[in-house]
Amino acid sequence: MTDNERNERLWNLAERLAATYRHDGVINRIGEKDLPSQATIVRILDRLLSVVFPGYFGDPVPRDTDLCLFAATNLDRLQGDLTAVLDQTLRFSRRHGCTCASLWTEPAGGQPESDLARVAHRLAFEYLENLPAIRTTLRADAQAAYEGDPAAASTDEVVLCYPGLLAIAVHRLAHPLHRLGVPLVPRIMSEWAHHRSGVDIHPGAEIGGSFFIDHGTGTVIGETTVIGDRVKLYQGVTLGALSFPRNPDGSLVKGGRRHPTVEDDATIYAGATILGGATVIGRGAVIGGGAWITESVPAGARIQGGRPGVSVAR
Amino acid sequence: MTDNERNERLWNLAERLAATYRHDGVINRIGEKDLPSQATIVRILDRLLSVVFPGYFGDPVPRDTDLCLFAATNLDRLQGDLTAVLDQTLRFSRRHGCTCASLWTEPAGGQPESDLARVAHRLAFEYLENLPAIRTTLRADAQAAYEGDPAAASTDEVVLCYPGLLAIAVHRLAHPLHRLGVPLVPRIMSEWAHHRSGVDIHPGAEIGGSFFIDHGTGTVIGETTVIGDRVKLYQGVTLGALSFPRNPDGSLVKGGRRHPTVEDDATIYAGATILGGATVIGRGAVIGGGAWITESVPAGARIQGGRPGVSVAR
Amino acid sequence: MTDNERNERLWNLAERLAATYRHDGVINRIGEKDLPSQATIVRILDRLLSVVFPGYFGDPVPRDTDLCLFAATNLDRLQGDLTAVLDQTLRFSRRHGCTCASLWTEPAGGQPESDLARVAHRLAFEYLENLPAIRTTLRADAQAAYEGDPAAASTDEVVLCYPGLLAIAVHRLAHPLHRLGVPLVPRIMSEWAHHRSGVDIHPGAEIGGSFFIDHGTGTVIGETTVIGDRVKLYQGVTLGALSFPRNPDGSLVKGGRRHPTVEDDATIYAGATILGGATVIGRGAVIGGGAWITESVPAGARIQGGRPGVSVAR
Repeated sequence: MTDNERNERLWNLAERLAATYRHDGVINRIGEKDLPSQATIVRILDRLLSVVFPGYFGDPVPRDTDLCLFAATNLDRLQGDLTAVLDQTLRFSRRHGCTCASLWTEPAGGQPESDLARVAHRLAFEYLENLPAIRTTLRADAQAAYEGDPAAASTDEVVLCYPGLLAIAVHRLAHPLHRLGVPLVPRIMSEWAHHRSGVDIHPGAEIGGSFFIDHGTGTVIGETTVIGDRVKLYQGVTLGALSFPRNPDGSLVKGGRRHPTVEDDATIYAGATILGGATVIGRGAVIGGGAWITESVPAGARIQGGRPGVSVAR
Repeated sequence: MTDNERNERLWNLAERLAATYRHDGVINRIGEKDLPSQATIVRILDRLLSVVFPGYFGDPVPRDTDLCLFAATNLDRLQGDLTAVLDQTLRFSRRHGCTCASLWTEPAGGQPESDLARVAHRLAFEYLENLPAIRTTLRADAQAAYEGDPAAASTDEVVLCYPGLLAIAVHRLAHPLHRLGVPLVPRIMSEWAHHRSGVDIHPGAEIGGSFFIDHGTGTVIGETTVIGDRVKLYQGVTLGALSFPRNPDGSLVKGGRRHPTVEDDATIYAGATILGGATVIGRGAVIGGGAWITESVPAGARIQGGRPGVSVAR
Repeated sequence: MTDNERNERLWNLAERLAATYRHDGVINRIGEKDLPSQATIVRILDRLLSVVFPGYFGDPVPRDTDLCLFAATNLDRLQGDLTAVLDQTLRFSRRHGCTCASLWTEPAGGQPESDLARVAHRLAFEYLENLPAIRTTLRADAQAAYEGDPAAASTDEVVLCYPGLLAIAVHRLAHPLHRLGVPLVPRIMSEWAHHRSGVDIHPGAEIGGSFFIDHGTGTVIGETTVIGDRVKLYQGVTLGALSFPRNPDGSLVKGGRRHPTVEDDATIYAGATILGGATVIGRGAVIGGGAWITESVPAGARIQGGRPGVSVAR
């Protein structure tokens, strides 16, 4: 093949590919400078993790550091970076008709872009105000992991090595953004945690204190799940939906309670599946591994999980 | 320990380690410049993803971009990079007796290396011709995810955050290389997607349009699986083999149909296991979570999954 | 908001955040220069992998390389890097009351830091002495994967693409550090492998030769598990604890046998759960996928896994 033939063939293919860019709009974002970038959000998340676990993630923090100055320097950077990402996300979302319109008051004739920048600035501050409380909550989560796993040799090991702690830490950092109504950004954070830890927690889930997921791979916690205090999960647990109500046009109803409630002090062993928005796992209940639960379980109940294996003829 | 003692001890250990390099050939590739590199293949995959989802992955695409030029520039780079990797992979595979001999016609006395370069060039072009159709297919996959998950707020969220979409996108990019008979490269692509998404799809699987895997962690789709249109899977689903036939010498038979068929519009919930090359999940069937299926299921059937948990004495 | 108002608000928030740094000691490592770094340990692991699989990971190894020199150069670097990390880890652990005191003899008045450096140097050498035997073991693991999976086209594909091989390779590299009593470092290695492969093997587990995990995502092998030779596992298998004995004060007993024994030639299919320190899967037993085992299974037994799905009214 000559160079000319090669170029002609490439150009012909390019024209056919470009035609799909013009027609298949669903998966194109051409000319879109405001799509929030995964890389930027992961950098913000890295900084958030190094602020809530100082010395563990990011650079070491020298002993003679002025802690207020350390906090202020990081908060200043976070405030700037978050404002930029939120501003971008709000522009993008307004342009593409997102459902988060409650974030701004839409004047007749549309809101000037400068107002979105002000909204982003306010949201970033409201978000950062959560950090001291998140720190306190994560301390209890780390303690729960250490106390809940005989293999944990120290809380240092828990913070450095436990994917379940990483998953709940990112959830506690993503959830307040979700509550503020910010689109995309908290989901990008939670999906990063899913990739890192194997645990898929939707940022909408409400999770109480002293929460521990051991091992974690394959555990899924759906958007409308509500979990009490001191709950312990293992790998492969699904807190999921039982069925999806549909609109008259056949499309799925978005929103509404679809996922279970797990009350204080419940334990759910590996591979158990709990489904449905009306399903309540009562206080202190123990759900055996591999159990399949679609109805409520009373407080203190002990539910057997998988049935014993049966020996068969060879 | 003096420096001399340290060096002597290291040298002694080095000699014992080097002895294993000479003897344990299975896991050595010394003097092998043609082993395809994971890093190179992941870079090619990154560019492929930024071509099929323009503006989402890779750099933003400015609004006034000439789309043909954008496509042509990327295709030109892909053609060059793919040709290089395929050339390398073919040399490597021929040297190590791979089963992909159908890719070239072996003249008496062996084929000159320049011919392999020509084969690589041709394969790269044949492969890239698939991209426009892959774009159209991925648009329907993104739409299926948006319509199939009440938690999905937009198709942008699906493209940016859904591991199931990433897994099927990489599969749709790896499968044509597998069909062309290229060794190693499509498997390296699919294993990258497995690592990123938790979903393990062998590049040999045949998967119809509008396919959606929700959550995805732990789902395994075997090499000879055949899946129809509009099929929906959840996390932890196995489409696997029931047993492995053996050759007279006791070694496993490579090739042959070992994995199930899933017909159009079937839904398979979390943790269900479907095994065997003769097992067919009929059109529109619904397989409950945790079900264990080793025989065919008729069209429209609804199979209950896990049994309800049993309350036991405390 | 004026710049002054912004700075005042940030400073006020910084003071509240800094207050949690002073109080919530569990998740702070401020002034701690000796916390072992994940990034450093992953770099060491990368070099270890390129030494045990020469030519596959890291740079290509030219054909005319002096293999002794190649080994010696890498061992020299590993010896230095490992000594540094172990020295740091020992200082950190002694300062924070770790249970690994058996690593050093504590003289009255505490051990001088220079002695810890000597201990670290000795441990690094003892550790590296394992590498030739690890190479031989990994060769058998790669062979077992190739022979155990009909989809495996070559051992090259196994080494480059199989997450189960990566998981066992990192385990074989982490386990000797665990046996030497080194805290944190082997767990950081095993958690990196968990993230990369979806397979969670505690570095304390004892695993025989020719071991193969296919697909792997979600498989968990607990700290005190003992596995014989030629054992084969699939994805989603749990070798876990049945219950946790407690001390009189209610805290969990750390240590003691909590996880099962799997004897030679046993096979455990996808999603099976085997629990308890007294549970023995006998030689050659086959455990069906999805089985739930809490009592010993005799040699050669064949245990049926998940029950067949039940068709229900629509």
